[in-house]
Amino acid sequence: MSEQDNDLKLDFNKGGGLLPAIVQDYATGEVLMVAYINGEAFQRTLETGKMHYYSRSRDRLWLKGESSGNVQSVKDILVDCDQDAVVFKIEQAGGAACHTGYRSCFHRRVEQNGELSLTEKEKVFDPDKVYSKGK
Amino acid sequence: MSEQDNDLKLDFNKGGGLLPAIVQDYATGEVLMVAYINGEAFQRTLETGKMHYYSRSRDRLWLKGESSGNVQSVKDILVDCDQDAVVFKIEQAGGAACHTGYRSCFHRRVEQNGELSLTEKEKVFDPDKVYSKGK
Repeated sequence: MSEQDNDLKLDFNKGGGLLPAIVQDYATGEVLMVAYINGEAFQRTLETGKMHYYSRSRDRLWLKGESSGNVQSVKDILVDCDQDAVVFKIEQAGGAACHTGYRSCFHRRVEQNGELSLTEKEKVFDPDKVYSKGK
Repeated sequence: MSEQDNDLKLDFNKGGGLLPAIVQDYATGEVLMVAYINGEAFQRTLETGKMHYYSRSRDRLWLKGESSGNVQSVKDILVDCDQDAVVFKIEQAGGAACHTGYRSCFHRRVEQNGELSLTEKEKVFDPDKVYSKGK
């Protein structure tokens, strides 16, 4: 049983080959983003200590920071009871994980009235400048 | 654009009708579990203030704590930039979110050698006792 033993056996079948990767700031515990990993992305992350994902929209392996330089250095990895989700505690280069320039992708709160409000006062970087380098 | 405006428009199409719900302890920021929500589960959660999920294995709506009594009271809800993942900050009744009896479902760490080690010293409850009530 993957719930009981000490063997790492991520259950990639559950998510059609992809599992959610929950990325937390190592120092603060803030959830910075959620993305997806396949077996190769997980292996590359383990080997390099830098977060690799599988992009569903681009249909390819993706080193976080390959465009922006904002790589994520892995400090801790936790797996859940049924091994179909992984928490990565990381240190974020550049101070922002979100491609919008905000520190966290989760920078909007659902208010009682169902509207969204910003939880971050300002962006860490201007995405137009950061992502125009290679163009 | 769901990334820029203040309208809540969760993109359930991205995950085939289900989106990952990341559940954090409101006080400590610890990630307790990851489960899935559909539109109805999200709506019920908003209305009741108690976490509802969609169980993929049981193929039905699921009030967390319906068997164990360990309900989760919602304190804060955050959505990500592309509105395909939701963070719920909650208060956990009974002290443990995991059906194994551990506080967090993420109670095992991936070590350098690829093996898993426990991060929690002991279980909060005995699952055989908690889940045998209705049997």
